[in-house]
Amino acid sequence: MQLTREKWSKNFSEWFDWVLREGEFYDYGRYPIKGMGVWMPYGFKLRQNVINLIRKLLDLTGHEEVLFPLLIPEDLLRRESTHIKGFEGEVFWVTKGGDEDLDIRLALRPTSEVAITWMENLWIKSYKQLPKKYYQIVSVFRYETKATRPMIRLREITTFKEAHTVHETYEDAQKQVEEAIEIYKKFFDEIGIPYVISERPEWDRFAGALHTYAFDTIMPDGRVMQIGTVHHLGQNFSKALDFKIQKRDGSLDYPHQTSYGISDRAIASVISIHGDDHGPVLPPSVSPYKVVLIPIPAKSEDENKRVLEYLQEIYEILIKNNISSIIDYDPEKTPGEKYYIWELKGVPIRIEIGPREVSSNTVFIKRRDNLESYKVKKDELIIRINEILNDIQENLRKRAWEFMNSKIKYSNDINEAKKIIEKELGIVEVPWCGKNECGLKIEELTDTRVLGYPIEERRVNDKCVICKMNAKTVLRIAKTY
Amino acid sequence: MQLTREKWSKNFSEWFDWVLREGEFYDYGRYPIKGMGVWMPYGFKLRQNVINLIRKLLDLTGHEEVLFPLLIPEDLLRRESTHIKGFEGEVFWVTKGGDEDLDIRLALRPTSEVAITWMENLWIKSYKQLPKKYYQIVSVFRYETKATRPMIRLREITTFKEAHTVHETYEDAQKQVEEAIEIYKKFFDEIGIPYVISERPEWDRFAGALHTYAFDTIMPDGRVMQIGTVHHLGQNFSKALDFKIQKRDGSLDYPHQTSYGISDRAIASVISIHGDDHGPVLPPSVSPYKVVLIPIPAKSEDENKRVLEYLQEIYEILIKNNISSIIDYDPEKTPGEKYYIWELKGVPIRIEIGPREVSSNTVFIKRRDNLESYKVKKDELIIRINEILNDIQENLRKRAWEFMNSKIKYSNDINEAKKIIEKELGIVEVPWCGKNECGLKIEELTDTRVLGYPIEERRVNDKCVICKMNAKTVLRIAKTY
Repeated sequence: MQLTREKWSKNFSEWFDWVLREGEFYDYGRYPIKGMGVWMPYGFKLRQNVINLIRKLLDLTGHEEVLFPLLIPEDLLRRESTHIKGFEGEVFWVTKGGDEDLDIRLALRPTSEVAITWMENLWIKSYKQLPKKYYQIVSVFRYETKATRPMIRLREITTFKEAHTVHETYEDAQKQVEEAIEIYKKFFDEIGIPYVISERPEWDRFAGALHTYAFDTIMPDGRVMQIGTVHHLGQNFSKALDFKIQKRDGSLDYPHQTSYGISDRAIASVISIHGDDHGPVLPPSVSPYKVVLIPIPAKSEDENKRVLEYLQEIYEILIKNNISSIIDYDPEKTPGEKYYIWELKGVPIRIEIGPREVSSNTVFIKRRDNLESYKVKKDELIIRINEILNDIQENLRKRAWEFMNSKIKYSNDINEAKKIIEKELGIVEVPWCGKNECGLKIEELTDTRVLGYPIEERRVNDKCVICKMNAKTVLRIAKTY
Repeated sequence: MQLTREKWSKNFSEWFDWVLREGEFYDYGRYPIKGMGVWMPYGFKLRQNVINLIRKLLDLTGHEEVLFPLLIPEDLLRRESTHIKGFEGEVFWVTKGGDEDLDIRLALRPTSEVAITWMENLWIKSYKQLPKKYYQIVSVFRYETKATRPMIRLREITTFKEAHTVHETYEDAQKQVEEAIEIYKKFFDEIGIPYVISERPEWDRFAGALHTYAFDTIMPDGRVMQIGTVHHLGQNFSKALDFKIQKRDGSLDYPHQTSYGISDRAIASVISIHGDDHGPVLPPSVSPYKVVLIPIPAKSEDENKRVLEYLQEIYEILIKNNISSIIDYDPEKTPGEKYYIWELKGVPIRIEIGPREVSSNTVFIKRRDNLESYKVKKDELIIRINEILNDIQENLRKRAWEFMNSKIKYSNDINEAKKIIEKELGIVEVPWCGKNECGLKIEELTDTRVLGYPIEERRVNDKCVICKMNAKTVLRIAKTY
């Protein structure tokens, strides 16, 4: 069973704001600049766990972490012409230092392809040094003119993990694209976030890329959110920056590059997608605490003392077994008030300890995801807690995939597709011949955004919804964040 | 014994640039903006270890990590008038978003007192929530007009750990100052960096502070570098932002604050101070690798195979025992070339393995700090390695303190003091009556910077070098970075 998901799905935007603020994840809308929020201590811990997870996956696959300057000179940013066109409208510019006008305007990095390629040009001379895989985790800035939303559409994206790689050949770069997709799959699997992977259509690629592959997920309200992208950059940036290497055959040539990123939206999705009307349910893999311990007051002071001693004993057993835990001692709150706040913080397991538990040498466990409770003997505590944590992790993943899959429909009729989206949002897949003009027409007629087409081959025994030619694949459409 | 320190001390600036670039710590002077450098993978690992150390110390003492926006609106930055006067000349200003002029200029944070106090005003209502201790690790920006130097004087300081605390009373804040000083002592002790703690004179306090306490160290060339500061802010910022709390007695009043910071300079000092003419010697507590393993080529392919197998076996023993290690397999470099580069990277222990070690089941160990070598049996490897690492750590600390102490002199004659500094740099302590006008005169007459006076009481049976009244304490003077 699970708690109701009325508020969560019907009024998601309000639910999300409430969770971020009251759960003390992220203070948004009160810092005096639009589109910029503050990571509070509890949210920061969640963010840190998510970052550590992606770091682990990248380090294991030979990626090296670096840190580049925030600022990029305007002339450097202008080197790749498609790139600057894509970002020009939304760059924040530094124009003054103290009272002086700067000689050249400096951009707050919107992304770092040109800055990193500039240095790669100094560092990499030969195919022998390849492949090279760098990444950094930094703030990037976009002067968004659309309505901003906490963690989802920001002017300062504070958790931008951007990877940048260099390869000798086009094919090597394509293999890197595949590796990146595998890494992101693992990452989202570990936080239980379901995804659809699409190649973005030609008219919606990253500015400067040959191919863009995107991970999308469906949020509680049915809108689709892009949560990761992988770009094959070809030689666009290496040519623009005149970055050449010596190849295996002795010739000098421009290397091939890829870049791929995930952002604060990964954290937004992990808070949102597993939620219910009491708040988020954080997967044990990234929850700041796996267990919260709450003392149940007894009738006598003597009994209370024993409760607290026993609580402390249980806490120490958990910590010794690497199960991050916290005791909520606050004497000014009732247990009920504590349940409320820790549900709102999404901690996956609650342990309640009162006189009954002390006298029977047991522990009362309550699961956040399905509200099941267990009475567990003290000496079975760790085995049971680990079982339950695994079960929660798996249950969250499973129900999130079920939720998402229930929102993906197929229709071979453009009007029906439009109606489905209007009524229930989600993703609709429509048969498509593969021509850009038909794709753009689909977008226009359904008033949606085209996500793209599946990266794997897809046999479709149907006709393109526009031109009625034989369909080559499906095109996915949705209302997006 | 140690390697010569000619280049290190006589030509420090050149030595430092050489180490950063060739040791692949930090690429400076080639990114196309003055005063901004790039953390390369090896340097990034060192930086990360230093950050983890300070994080550990702060977390253990109840500090909570947060993350605030980079940008601060001009009107907010102007709220505390002394503060803005101190920073005004060196603020980078964002004035444009895309093609639009912004309504209000946005500062790249030079430091975050006002931004954090703004949010504390929303978060903290009562003495019951106090003390509150926040910190963040971020980039801060200063439009330096002086000559910039890698890690030491930057326009983007990329590793600014700033802590900000809130207290009910002045005394509570003073106690926090003492806690901060203790934390920083532990931190610098763990990386073996010696320090002198001084209260900065009134004319050299942090802009907006009542008191500033600073950690200074002496660099290889004898110049003094500030490596940490702790500020008692009193009610200056809480008043400027109208931030009031309910006190224990029921009244509403402005809380008292402190802030304290360390920066990239901590990393600059750990690279510099333990060095010699072959490069830095990194303390095991923060070195990216504690051990580098180098295979010594044998005569036959068969033997080479056995060397590599044995090397791998030793490597795995080290890793299993949590001793971070790396094998340098590079077939294109001779052992000698590898020694050179890993000395330049400062790895504290080198292990060489050739046919002799294979046949005798031993390991050849070379210490980076004093060049001693040991032949160790395989089954004693871990015990010996740990002993040697501890010994290196202690030896570095000891010799660094000896070096610094040898550079601190006392003089009760202003001309002599001036001459000492001119000849050998370092710190000179001169007796002082305690009056500002005499302090300023000392600075002027010696053409130095006053660091301040000891935080502990210091009995001085001498006369002030300027006014000849009885000295109350000593004033420390130096040429500084």
